[in-house]
Amino acid sequence: MATTTVKAYGATASTEDLKPLDIERRSVGTDDVKIDITYCGVCHSDIHTARNDWKGSTYPVVPGHEIIGRVVEVGNGVSNYKVGDLVGVGCLVDSCQTCSSCEQDLEQFCEKGATWTYNSPDKHIEGAQTYGGYSTSVVVDEKFVLSIPENLDEAGTAPLLCAGITTWSPLSHWKVKKGDKVGVIGLGGLGHMGVKFAHALGAHVVMITTSPEKGKDAKRLGAHEVLVSKDAEDMKKHQGSFDFILNTIPVGHEMDPYLGLLKIDATMVLVGAVEPLKPFHGGSVIGGRKRIAGSLIGGIKETQEMLDFCGEHNITSDIEIIDMQDINKAYERVTSNDVKYRFVIDMKSLK
Amino acid sequence: MATTTVKAYGATASTEDLKPLDIERRSVGTDDVKIDITYCGVCHSDIHTARNDWKGSTYPVVPGHEIIGRVVEVGNGVSNYKVGDLVGVGCLVDSCQTCSSCEQDLEQFCEKGATWTYNSPDKHIEGAQTYGGYSTSVVVDEKFVLSIPENLDEAGTAPLLCAGITTWSPLSHWKVKKGDKVGVIGLGGLGHMGVKFAHALGAHVVMITTSPEKGKDAKRLGAHEVLVSKDAEDMKKHQGSFDFILNTIPVGHEMDPYLGLLKIDATMVLVGAVEPLKPFHGGSVIGGRKRIAGSLIGGIKETQEMLDFCGEHNITSDIEIIDMQDINKAYERVTSNDVKYRFVIDMKSLK
Repeated sequence: MATTTVKAYGATASTEDLKPLDIERRSVGTDDVKIDITYCGVCHSDIHTARNDWKGSTYPVVPGHEIIGRVVEVGNGVSNYKVGDLVGVGCLVDSCQTCSSCEQDLEQFCEKGATWTYNSPDKHIEGAQTYGGYSTSVVVDEKFVLSIPENLDEAGTAPLLCAGITTWSPLSHWKVKKGDKVGVIGLGGLGHMGVKFAHALGAHVVMITTSPEKGKDAKRLGAHEVLVSKDAEDMKKHQGSFDFILNTIPVGHEMDPYLGLLKIDATMVLVGAVEPLKPFHGGSVIGGRKRIAGSLIGGIKETQEMLDFCGEHNITSDIEIIDMQDINKAYERVTSNDVKYRFVIDMKSLK
Repeated sequence: MATTTVKAYGATASTEDLKPLDIERRSVGTDDVKIDITYCGVCHSDIHTARNDWKGSTYPVVPGHEIIGRVVEVGNGVSNYKVGDLVGVGCLVDSCQTCSSCEQDLEQFCEKGATWTYNSPDKHIEGAQTYGGYSTSVVVDEKFVLSIPENLDEAGTAPLLCAGITTWSPLSHWKVKKGDKVGVIGLGGLGHMGVKFAHALGAHVVMITTSPEKGKDAKRLGAHEVLVSKDAEDMKKHQGSFDFILNTIPVGHEMDPYLGLLKIDATMVLVGAVEPLKPFHGGSVIGGRKRIAGSLIGGIKETQEMLDFCGEHNITSDIEIIDMQDINKAYERVTSNDVKYRFVIDMKSLK
């Protein structure tokens, strides 16, 4: 298949900084949309993959799955997008479309294995793998392209494609509703979106954090209360009172104190810790018939629903815009939790 | 309040064997039912409480919460039972009846604290605590008395009051239905009831065990398949295929291999391990949006539904009958997993 060379930034080894690279993008096929990338968010997964923390990275790794851009070309079979449209691409660029997961709009759980936006085998270019949004353009099957409401701030929309759907999906799946008492643990890229969404859904939102100094910002973002998890008395006061807890802590941690906050039959959903948790006590779920669940991004249909909701409620991510050339410094800052709340690369800097 | 002295068996200290004791039972009040105990099951919780494994035991401890007997006296206000009825008493003998849990028929989660059948403060005798079924009779509020179908084997019915409802409740709450693929982990007092119930509900039942030699008995009890969890190839074959897993393992254990067996959105319920589990990997629930939940016995209404179901399907526990005087030997055998599948005390031996 014919390809075009485009500029990108990527890692050539787990121990290397990211640097300029040339990569190949396929020509626009019948069902394809070619997108001129304007902004790309920086997700912690980008760093994990660039550094091979989760193993399985194949180099070069070109990260980036919070992609925003304008349509510059469409295939003959494309019906939902036209040149000039503002669109997004998230973590997924393909799936089998026929398995039971795909049929339920859960492409992220495709039984044949979804094609991730980067570091997945590329179905279209033999022997190649997918490259993400740290690049000037991308070609994607229209089924995996999202429509971005034009009223939203373009750069702030990028993180919705991963941080947004990752926090929206569990709130939606577990039917968080007006009046529910919802806890959000951890105020980072994920947590700050969780607070905004839970607030917009009409919940009573409690930011649960180890850092009292985060309280002011949490309230600005939409939290009604702040619960400092190191404060034993405050934790006791909130015991057994939460309808739902969104747990965005990105590393293994003790879960018993948080499980104690749940009401009977209530659920805590893990979205951040893709690593071993610390042991929890069986009694923490047996007493009160409680639940620990997981959630992984969301399907394409659900992602579009989230974006439409954001358009209606004018929700975007709080971001810090960087140039592509600043990516390695940004990675250091993400790793030390020094960003409010998401870096977004202005892709003009690469052009 | 007037009391009557009755014979019992109990522990006077955590390190002592159980021995004959005299205890006081209250006189029959307006709403009370006096039961002449015929059989009492031996539950692992009895041993934990007698030995103060969970702390909080107050001595003497008279265990026993799988009580079967005949009504010998009823209060003026009792409408549901009459002298001669075959009845049962499980883990609960009282609750506040007014909190939100009690109003939802979840007396086991009474917000004021349920009164457990043994080792709870007794509301009726000041300064006293409740004593369980290792005794000749008991007086219980009719709201906490269960009706036992007369067609069932009386002794084999005793374990339904705890082992039965503990396994029935999660199958019912999570709506296990005909055709579901259900795994039951662990073939003991709880597990063998889980297999019988899941079979009777029409599920495809897979006994999951570390001990291949348990397979034959599992099939006799109703399992359609046996999965030896130490067999990596067999585990791989069943990967991602279970609609529901009932986990009856009574001690902390690795959960990741079992979580891998669940389908997307499926649930594993813990009913046995009231102690710290081993660390599980966040990815085990995040990938596949899976759930770990807990379950604790069941409410009174649900317990009666379970007993009625047992009556219709002629389900009882597989038991070994012992005399009261053999209880200490029985405890040793329970501790070393040497019982198929529940000891039941013939209370004639104490009279």
